Amino acid sequence: MTARFARLPSPPYYAVIFSSQRNGEDDPGYGQAAQRMVELAAQQPGFLGVESVRGDDGFGITVSYWADEAAIAAWKRQAEHAATRAYGREHWYDHFELRVAKVERAYGSKSRA
Amino acid sequence: MTARFARLPSPPYYAVIFSSQRNGEDDPGYGQAAQRMVELAAQQPGFLGVESVRGDDGFGITVSYWADEAAIAAWKRQAEHAATRAYGREHWYDHFELRVAKVERAYGSKSRA
Repeated sequence: MTARFARLPSPPYYAVIFSSQRNGEDDPGYGQAAQRMVELAAQQPGFLGVESVRGDDGFGITVSYWADEAAIAAWKRQAEHAATRAYGREHWYDHFELRVAKVERAYGSKSRA
Repeated sequence: MTARFARLPSPPYYAVIFSSQRNGEDDPGYGQAAQRMVELAAQQPGFLGVESVRGDDGFGITVSYWADEAAIAAWKRQAEHAATRAYGREHWYDHFELRVAKVERAYGSKSRA
């Protein structure tokens, strides 16, 4: 298993599904900010993990996993995250969708063993 | 907004989050089967939409959206899907994780207007 998979506890826990279309602008700050957000999120109480991928056409999906709704709310309020989010809405994306979901069950290919 | 975003009703609904790492094998059947599965899923009762992306390193996330748990269960039982899934487990992926979640709230960048 590669490092790209989140190592999560057993459900229930929460998922924040963020799908986004980058605009065509090659903002050099974007990659740095994205990496910084992952590092910041990992310091938040209740952060469980994240999986993220973006294709060549600029469409991407990031799913972050959280222990509960309170952890998601605290992350939303985190000041640097809030500022980066506001900047990103204006500068990085043509469109995005965000969905908050409660994970009820899960399994992986390792569970075949 | 591009066609890559699912157009979904208001929550609640369900999300099936499938993250996977393709093996390095260039199975010509993979792309065809993946496309076929999207077409088949779209014919299932309760199918709401799908968003999917795979990066250059073979890591991908596909999130399919469903009206309820019964719709997910019916899709899992669909015969061609079940056969393709069994084939894929053996031939296409180094690893995958599947999480079933109930979407409780959602918003998109259009909702700023």
